[in-house]
Amino acid sequence: MKLYMTDISGNSYKVRVLASILNVPYEKVYVDWDSREHKQPPFLKLNPRGQVPVMEIEGKVFWDSTAHLVYIARKFGGERWLPADALGMAEVAQWLAFAQNEIHFGLQWSRGVMKGLKTGSLQEYQGYGRKALEVLAWHLKDHEWLAVGRPTIADIACYPYVKRAPEGGFMLDAYPAVVTWLECCEALPGWLKLQER
Amino acid sequence: MKLYMTDISGNSYKVRVLASILNVPYEKVYVDWDSREHKQPPFLKLNPRGQVPVMEIEGKVFWDSTAHLVYIARKFGGERWLPADALGMAEVAQWLAFAQNEIHFGLQWSRGVMKGLKTGSLQEYQGYGRKALEVLAWHLKDHEWLAVGRPTIADIACYPYVKRAPEGGFMLDAYPAVVTWLECCEALPGWLKLQER
Repeated sequence: MKLYMTDISGNSYKVRVLASILNVPYEKVYVDWDSREHKQPPFLKLNPRGQVPVMEIEGKVFWDSTAHLVYIARKFGGERWLPADALGMAEVAQWLAFAQNEIHFGLQWSRGVMKGLKTGSLQEYQGYGRKALEVLAWHLKDHEWLAVGRPTIADIACYPYVKRAPEGGFMLDAYPAVVTWLECCEALPGWLKLQER
Repeated sequence: MKLYMTDISGNSYKVRVLASILNVPYEKVYVDWDSREHKQPPFLKLNPRGQVPVMEIEGKVFWDSTAHLVYIARKFGGERWLPADALGMAEVAQWLAFAQNEIHFGLQWSRGVMKGLKTGSLQEYQGYGRKALEVLAWHLKDHEWLAVGRPTIADIACYPYVKRAPEGGFMLDAYPAVVTWLECCEALPGWLKLQER
């Protein structure tokens, strides 16, 4: 497996965390974000979205971190990080989708605007971001983990842009159950520290 | 299974299509969109996001259509609509994520603004929507289906807001491979027609 990544990318980080936890070896290919290598033709041939991470797996190219998490979990993690039964898989899938919804265009985009990485309406994105934190807090008030009562790729997928939410103007102290959940993630054996820039 | 839905919701439609194809019975609970029932406390107890569809499955509440598709596919469709092997599942997961990304905040949101259902920057959303169509066209130029060489829940998840893209200001004629793919979806046994409003 070959992972095209940057050290700062939160979506690359998700893949690296799971590989670290499961002790799965892979080759890192660093993409030069500063020279916008990810927007140049050679990289766009791999991923027309122009984003990292991209992963080459068994001769195929995958350009979405959700796919990378699913592959690694199923291939190397048994049922532990992604259950195979219909109900358990649906529970995990729900939070994988949430990571691509309010967490993405709420928390991640708010941070993007505040850090000058993205244009758009901070007010609009922060509205979605607050919804993301409210839904997480609502669930975590009586659950330790997002799905199936144990850590899964749902937690890994949702973690990075919740952790970085303060950089998008959010006060995590207002959501103590969310802070506790972040700490539980960080205490997992093999967990990697999220790099800040 | 109980599906809280509206006839016009594209995300509810995804679930109805799969249930129709697999001939899975379920109870429909109509949510009154016009009176904003989905934003009132009784509904928000089911789904704090205030959106349809919501599904009650085996005594649990699921509030994201991706989870509903995964559940129905795994429970009633064997490996046909969602493969269980790591590589096949990752392929499907990639497009499920795509349906939640550029298709959602590109194609769906552009339509939402043009139909007065949503505020925000039409120009920004249309930029993402064009990216959605470009990525689909890029893939479909040499693939009949989105994942694993056959129809899966990836196609069902991506279909509705691609089909409705013209209502968001997009010209599908510019993407003939995408139009052909939509027609292939519509020709599947059990497929339901997407209702327009």
